[in-house]
Amino acid sequence: MTRHRVIFQPSGRRGEVEDGTNLLDAARNLGVDIESICGGKGTCGKCKVRVEEGFFEKDAMDSRMNHLSPLTGQEMKFLKPSDGPAMRLACAAQVQGDVKIFVPEKSRAGKQIVRKAAKELTIAIDPAVKKYFVEMQKPSLAEPITGDFERLRGHEALREALRRQAGLDGLSIDFTVLRDLQDAIRKGNWGVTVTVWKGREIIKVEPGFVETAYGLAVDVGTTTVVGYLTDLATGKVVNTESMMNPQVPYGEDVMSRITYAMTNEGGVRKMQKTIIDGLNEIIAKATKDLRANGDLSGKKAGGSGDAIVDLTIVFNTAMHHIFLGFNPEYIGRSPFIPAIQHGIDIKARDLGIKINRGSYIYVLPIEAGFVGADNVGVLIAEEPYNMDETVLIIDIGTNGELLLGNRRRVCSTSCATGPAFEGAQIKMGMRAAPGAIEKVKIEPATKEPLYKVIGKEDWHTHVEKIDAKGICGSGIIDAIAEMYKAGIIDKSGKFDMTAKSPRIRRDHDGKPEYVLAWADETSIGADITINQADVRALQLAKGALYAGAKLMMQKMGIEKLDKVILAGAFGSYIDKESAMTLGMFPDCEIDKVYAVGNAAGDGARMALLNTAKRDEAEQRARWVEFVEIAVEPNFEREFMQAMHLPHMKDRFPNLKKLLEKAASPVVING
Amino acid sequence: MTRHRVIFQPSGRRGEVEDGTNLLDAARNLGVDIESICGGKGTCGKCKVRVEEGFFEKDAMDSRMNHLSPLTGQEMKFLKPSDGPAMRLACAAQVQGDVKIFVPEKSRAGKQIVRKAAKELTIAIDPAVKKYFVEMQKPSLAEPITGDFERLRGHEALREALRRQAGLDGLSIDFTVLRDLQDAIRKGNWGVTVTVWKGREIIKVEPGFVETAYGLAVDVGTTTVVGYLTDLATGKVVNTESMMNPQVPYGEDVMSRITYAMTNEGGVRKMQKTIIDGLNEIIAKATKDLRANGDLSGKKAGGSGDAIVDLTIVFNTAMHHIFLGFNPEYIGRSPFIPAIQHGIDIKARDLGIKINRGSYIYVLPIEAGFVGADNVGVLIAEEPYNMDETVLIIDIGTNGELLLGNRRRVCSTSCATGPAFEGAQIKMGMRAAPGAIEKVKIEPATKEPLYKVIGKEDWHTHVEKIDAKGICGSGIIDAIAEMYKAGIIDKSGKFDMTAKSPRIRRDHDGKPEYVLAWADETSIGADITINQADVRALQLAKGALYAGAKLMMQKMGIEKLDKVILAGAFGSYIDKESAMTLGMFPDCEIDKVYAVGNAAGDGARMALLNTAKRDEAEQRARWVEFVEIAVEPNFEREFMQAMHLPHMKDRFPNLKKLLEKAASPVVING
Repeated sequence: MTRHRVIFQPSGRRGEVEDGTNLLDAARNLGVDIESICGGKGTCGKCKVRVEEGFFEKDAMDSRMNHLSPLTGQEMKFLKPSDGPAMRLACAAQVQGDVKIFVPEKSRAGKQIVRKAAKELTIAIDPAVKKYFVEMQKPSLAEPITGDFERLRGHEALREALRRQAGLDGLSIDFTVLRDLQDAIRKGNWGVTVTVWKGREIIKVEPGFVETAYGLAVDVGTTTVVGYLTDLATGKVVNTESMMNPQVPYGEDVMSRITYAMTNEGGVRKMQKTIIDGLNEIIAKATKDLRANGDLSGKKAGGSGDAIVDLTIVFNTAMHHIFLGFNPEYIGRSPFIPAIQHGIDIKARDLGIKINRGSYIYVLPIEAGFVGADNVGVLIAEEPYNMDETVLIIDIGTNGELLLGNRRRVCSTSCATGPAFEGAQIKMGMRAAPGAIEKVKIEPATKEPLYKVIGKEDWHTHVEKIDAKGICGSGIIDAIAEMYKAGIIDKSGKFDMTAKSPRIRRDHDGKPEYVLAWADETSIGADITINQADVRALQLAKGALYAGAKLMMQKMGIEKLDKVILAGAFGSYIDKESAMTLGMFPDCEIDKVYAVGNAAGDGARMALLNTAKRDEAEQRARWVEFVEIAVEPNFEREFMQAMHLPHMKDRFPNLKKLLEKAASPVVING
Repeated sequence: MTRHRVIFQPSGRRGEVEDGTNLLDAARNLGVDIESICGGKGTCGKCKVRVEEGFFEKDAMDSRMNHLSPLTGQEMKFLKPSDGPAMRLACAAQVQGDVKIFVPEKSRAGKQIVRKAAKELTIAIDPAVKKYFVEMQKPSLAEPITGDFERLRGHEALREALRRQAGLDGLSIDFTVLRDLQDAIRKGNWGVTVTVWKGREIIKVEPGFVETAYGLAVDVGTTTVVGYLTDLATGKVVNTESMMNPQVPYGEDVMSRITYAMTNEGGVRKMQKTIIDGLNEIIAKATKDLRANGDLSGKKAGGSGDAIVDLTIVFNTAMHHIFLGFNPEYIGRSPFIPAIQHGIDIKARDLGIKINRGSYIYVLPIEAGFVGADNVGVLIAEEPYNMDETVLIIDIGTNGELLLGNRRRVCSTSCATGPAFEGAQIKMGMRAAPGAIEKVKIEPATKEPLYKVIGKEDWHTHVEKIDAKGICGSGIIDAIAEMYKAGIIDKSGKFDMTAKSPRIRRDHDGKPEYVLAWADETSIGADITINQADVRALQLAKGALYAGAKLMMQKMGIEKLDKVILAGAFGSYIDKESAMTLGMFPDCEIDKVYAVGNAAGDGARMALLNTAKRDEAEQRARWVEFVEIAVEPNFEREFMQAMHLPHMKDRFPNLKKLLEKAASPVVING
């Protein structure tokens, strides 16, 4: 097979790829992140790259374009003269000779700022994994021979400690721990610390007395992965590590990844390996300091992850299946059947997860179709089933999941919001990365905006070089809410072109747009605008959420919400008043709208710290009623209505009060 | 690191080794079997090899001996002028240049004939692993979403079938099986065959109706490994595969291997890998025909071993520990503590055993110190605890294990017989391989012998070219018993040098010996003799067995044995009358002496076919009383007495009857 050299600029990464490899795959192989929302299907047009001047000595005479496959009709649809010369879609252009490629900043998948810090939880500490110190009598020839395991298991103190748990006779030992047992016992002079899982199985043995035990609670989001390293005795998070989900190059949303799995030989395994490698990276980083601090359990054989003796994990259903190596095909299509709904205990080593060799990971149960273990995490963290008030919990990630109810009944559903809330499907949308516009205010009289960019301390008018790059989710919600309040768009989302402002104009296709930042305020050299299509995309997304909530209310006979909880990292950053202005959820007292941050991660942490929470998760995941809103007869009508922006006064009585405040946006942090 | 070329003749195997590697290790690396009873410690002198003429062009001027390290004092003790020139001990000579080595036939580790055919067992078929066919309703959007696992588990027929077993709510599924579940269900059009372990866990799912399920019962002996491929529905052995234990090059007996593990970095892992590779070879061979016969379950993903859904295994304690990767150090020294006595269920994949991915192997429990799972196999196969009569069960492998008792009480012990019964520690001893003298008769008047060689049809006088090479265990027992009966040795084992026969002579050290085969009857070009040391070695071995049995009888207050069972492959081939003549066990009616063949393997087969047998094994292994005979106060005295050959008439009343028969030896086959 012929191979060609490829160099990516400005990162300078280089390597050889096989003839016929497309530039997107080449970039992935070389660790260059190129935006690809559609997962390489040629439908999003985000992966534009520029072919640099040919500089390769051996055949400098060749046209630089001959080193790539010919331009396709698909590419021509996306490539504009304004993009400049020699542009290609990375997913369409195949390498046929040595090439040097420049990835414009717009096309670079930025390193997202992961906003998933751990908050304080109030929970009784009763973890599934506990340590016990056992001092034994040394054996002699004068007594009947007893195996080390039997001697340990027969120890009165251990028997007593475990009696309350799973029943003693069931106490077994992971066979890989047996490998260490005899040496550990003798090294500890017949005193050892045993780590026991659920009172049932010895999963670790250490010589002498070792007090500390760590667990890791993991939340694998479609876009970000976060791990909370937790002291199992105190419940304290000693370290939070996060990263972009390394599966992003295979597709930015769930459906793209399912499609990748279905259309690529070994696709599931490839994505599975990617996420597990990523998790191992988080494990290594989270435990690195333990070693530096002289923590004994972290220092020993097999790498630092050994200090972690338990792990809980949540994700949506598709990430769940791919993580476990299951074919996600059937959850991606009607009737949306998962392989399993129950939680699963899996030996970490079976998945290649580098924690203590004998330990299990606990995968939280999933509810149904697209309502995954992450939503079960939200469920056990927020406990709507223990509330008298009727609460609507909105978990906004790459998908939107809703829980509605109280102690009598809770229903759940999943809304196909699409990724608009995260800045995808938006012309100038981007993830919450440095350079993203995250907050917006618009002065109704002048239509002049005031915006804040991630990575800059103050509003743009107070920052010397603002270098905006695009708009992230919270910025889009702010911007469109403000555009509505300022009369730039009406309640149907249509632009009012009569307003006198240079910022309200038509693009080269004649479509209305609003200029949020002028080219000279950006690092991309182009105006950052919100156009009619962007407004429509957001209307679709918020309409899906609103209609979902409304239909669930109808189904349950609920007239009014007592409380709204915005969960998800994104939920912590959107302005709740902007969200209300847009009508993202049915009306509720503004004081009764809470942002709780990463509730899915909180659920994983709770399951780590309290074993009863796992039983609760199993029971409540089955108890919650899943509502498939797409099959509800009223769905279409509700959805159409929900697309509109609310009448400020009559549909949202609370909004009036809100508008009267007219203060600068209040951001609620979790 | 400098590397040198090494060639071994006559096999012609060649390769490169690092400077300083000894020839024994070099041979192991290249797959050349050289005898090494002491495990490379330079104490057995069995690994003599000849350095061939230098033929390497590049420095033909060098002395051929300079390519090896200098002769050691240790080697000089073993090397005799009669060995011929240029001989070395392979374990002592280190490679320092290119060499060509000839391995004389005497030093080659012959391919043993494995005599472990499966016999018919009478046992109720109730295996731990069973298959069930389940036909499900296809899901639709109209019903609540149910995971495939939950749909399967909830199926009424399966619930009913499992109700009798471990309690239904416990039914789980191996997570690797979940990977196949969804595809299998749809491929089978909602009809699947599930394989369930102990009514508790689904370990395999196949589309459609699949009837056959196979299990493998494995007996890992110190010297040989045998696997019985069994149809779990009928209990029939469909294939028996065996091989030399591939750990033999690391030491021929248990202690040598323990020493190897303790003195070599990574020694346990190396030996573990060796035996597991060997087992996988047996698995591949045993299941090869299943595929050829069009057996579906054998044909599918992942190789032929997939058809095997259960595996039971027995071995002695040292082989047990090494197989599982445990340090065997502590069972090798007082107070002889094993890591675990209980039986263990281990996912086959955790050990790299290539059977069905979700399956467990069941390691039978061990009793104590040197009384291993193999002896537990004997125990549950022969069931002395269900007998009214008092029985002595002698399991003769590389060690000797004894069980004595009846339904009221059973004691066990292990006798340090050493490997003399298997032909080691005997000057011309060898394993039961082609060329080994296996049966001997001696005419008392003339002192002329009659012998039979493995691989030849008839006694040596009736075979044109007998090509004897050495003597195996059964041959040694015959020969020494016959020498005693013919008056060549007396009851103390001393040679009577007054007898007139050219076969009774003194060796070059002046020690008496008896010539069993003249040099021209052999393939090794030297007389095959039995010398005074050989007689002593056998006396020690049989003395240990006899004293062990006698001491157990004393301890239990037993005067007389009702029954003697000779177990072990070797036990099937020794002549029971010769054994009685030598006094290998206390007196018993000759009609009440039975050879049962590989009872350890029978026990493994029973545990495979009947799950209650596993519980029986766990209970009885704890119930049997282990007696450490070496610490008994009478041990030394009994042992000294037992060394003597019995007075023909008074100590062995039955022997009289026996001697009167005077027929040719009767061989009892299992």
